[in-house]
Amino acid sequence: MSTKTERLDPWSIEDVEDYDRLIRVFGIERINDNLLRSLPFLNRYMRRRIVFGHRGLWEIIKAIKENRVYAVMSGIKPTGVFHFGSKITAEQIIYFQQLSPKAIVFYAVADIEAWEDNGIPLKESREIAVDNVADLLALGIDYKRLYVYRQSEEERVLRLSYVFARGLTYNLLEAIYGEKHIGMYMSALVQVADILLPQLEEFGGPKPTIVPVGVDQDPHIRLTRDIARKYSREYGFILPSSVYHKLQKSLTGSGKMSKRDPMSYLTLNDSSKMVELKIKRAFTGGRETAELQRKLGGRPEICVVYQLWLYHVDDDVKVSRVFEECKSGKRICGECKLELIEEINKFLEKHKERKEKFRDLARELLERKKYTLESLKNII
Amino acid sequence: MSTKTERLDPWSIEDVEDYDRLIRVFGIERINDNLLRSLPFLNRYMRRRIVFGHRGLWEIIKAIKENRVYAVMSGIKPTGVFHFGSKITAEQIIYFQQLSPKAIVFYAVADIEAWEDNGIPLKESREIAVDNVADLLALGIDYKRLYVYRQSEEERVLRLSYVFARGLTYNLLEAIYGEKHIGMYMSALVQVADILLPQLEEFGGPKPTIVPVGVDQDPHIRLTRDIARKYSREYGFILPSSVYHKLQKSLTGSGKMSKRDPMSYLTLNDSSKMVELKIKRAFTGGRETAELQRKLGGRPEICVVYQLWLYHVDDDVKVSRVFEECKSGKRICGECKLELIEEINKFLEKHKERKEKFRDLARELLERKKYTLESLKNII
Repeated sequence: MSTKTERLDPWSIEDVEDYDRLIRVFGIERINDNLLRSLPFLNRYMRRRIVFGHRGLWEIIKAIKENRVYAVMSGIKPTGVFHFGSKITAEQIIYFQQLSPKAIVFYAVADIEAWEDNGIPLKESREIAVDNVADLLALGIDYKRLYVYRQSEEERVLRLSYVFARGLTYNLLEAIYGEKHIGMYMSALVQVADILLPQLEEFGGPKPTIVPVGVDQDPHIRLTRDIARKYSREYGFILPSSVYHKLQKSLTGSGKMSKRDPMSYLTLNDSSKMVELKIKRAFTGGRETAELQRKLGGRPEICVVYQLWLYHVDDDVKVSRVFEECKSGKRICGECKLELIEEINKFLEKHKERKEKFRDLARELLERKKYTLESLKNII
Repeated sequence: MSTKTERLDPWSIEDVEDYDRLIRVFGIERINDNLLRSLPFLNRYMRRRIVFGHRGLWEIIKAIKENRVYAVMSGIKPTGVFHFGSKITAEQIIYFQQLSPKAIVFYAVADIEAWEDNGIPLKESREIAVDNVADLLALGIDYKRLYVYRQSEEERVLRLSYVFARGLTYNLLEAIYGEKHIGMYMSALVQVADILLPQLEEFGGPKPTIVPVGVDQDPHIRLTRDIARKYSREYGFILPSSVYHKLQKSLTGSGKMSKRDPMSYLTLNDSSKMVELKIKRAFTGGRETAELQRKLGGRPEICVVYQLWLYHVDDDVKVSRVFEECKSGKRICGECKLELIEEINKFLEKHKERKEKFRDLARELLERKKYTLESLKNII
């Protein structure tokens, strides 16, 4: 076994310095053992420290301990099919829902953002949203404790964004988001409203709220916490909490996954053939030759295929075996990819079956024909 | 009679140059005799040229002639009681409603603007709106052809403002409105949405729309026409038309009426004592002494009291008598004020009686309990 393994473990191998910088510069708090021990149980993102940082997570831990209602809030931008990055967020939401029977999930379909940022007309994103929500349901959310909505159809969110807009200067928004068109800034305010929606009177008033998001969403969280503070007297807002997960790398090995390059990410709709193609072409941490790899071992710390194992395969024993075999040179990339393709396709096959059963319910939820605010009243 | 009367007539005496400049610089079209003759009848604002300019008024004239549906759109900012400036707009709306049985009025209570611009919370402006709408009803609008709403509660308007926001730059909005906070720009987009709301499918689709406003509102109209053009392919918008009336001067003689100085304007809620006080203190075009006035005649062209006669007293014979007597030195300001006080108080007394009867209906209309979109269907 290579000596390099001494500085690394299978669960936290990537970009440590980058994430440390986020913690230092933006005041994100680190997820530590104490916090993890205070939670009733951990999912793989938590126990593998893929979730590495938070703001105010203790508010949620207290609510769980005291059996008080709290909200779990996040969403998806309906620009296309559910990819494996959105899957992380969705599974985090489901995790926080499962931590307590008093947890209610708010899931925003960010159709305003899909329009402002990506130019997808509201009509067009309507059908995409149905597909996305069917994925969420198939991933295992308890839909009786779920309030799902399209931003453009949730009058309270739109109204609230206007309330929050007063007094915000262009300079402030430019400092946070860079130079954007007005629609983008308005869309940011809609997200702030999304996050504070669960605390309105109609939803039972102020309550702790946990927002599981990719760390790239932290600017929204900071703006939201500032605005919640500003309006705390009028609305009684409790500052929303957040947990941050690391970002899924592009399959091609460069940068984040990008919707512009479909080969850069897996989706929940991919055919088994497509999964095979994408993973076979994926960037790895393998050496130039099989011989060298046998001698030096692989580099899971830069390997996109290993990241997929780490993020999406639940079996700790199996994943740690992949890691050890890779580092020690026992495992060659070709075999590793075939094994992963099988894992992912097994999961996707089951997922697609479940999803078909949930498609009608997804539509009904979005059309507010079932499990509306009314049906949440017994929890709130 | 002074020779000065040769250049002036009782119906168009003020700020002619200023309004000419608007026509030149911003491309507002002048209201001419041809246009006036094409209208079925004229109200006092039209026949006295208090309405001096327009954009695309011929669209409405055509619709009237061809007995086609058109919309009349305007609104009020619910920051306080209805003043005599809002009364001009309201009476213009009523006029355009009366021109055809196919005219439907859309009246926006601009509570978003009252928040962004004046910091009046939405809750607070709710009651103000009821009072304002009762005034509109008492002024004689046909409430069976009226769709009245609060901006913050009209989901379609809020959504549409987000559609229009995409791609608009800060630079553009700053060029139109000056340097404002983001909420103000968002509020401007809500007004654009207000004006285009009548053309949505739910309201029967594209139709000519006339927006009677004070000339200070022209920037909104220009932005709206630009946006209507931009989205014409998707929504089929017909460019909205507008008519512009001159602005009521401050009673104190300097500048526009300002809500910051209650002595600067009359309201529909003023007591007879208050009307007396305000008019007695009003700035006139009188001379230094009664003797001089008898000799030189008064100056109605700069007189706020004469402007009230001109804008708010319907009887042409009476108003022209006031003008002639003033110019010829027969009429002294004290008498003139007493006579006007009596006129205004006679009107307000009747108005308040009518208004009390309409207060419940105003509330019902705003709460959408009566005469909703459904009841307009037979016209649309």
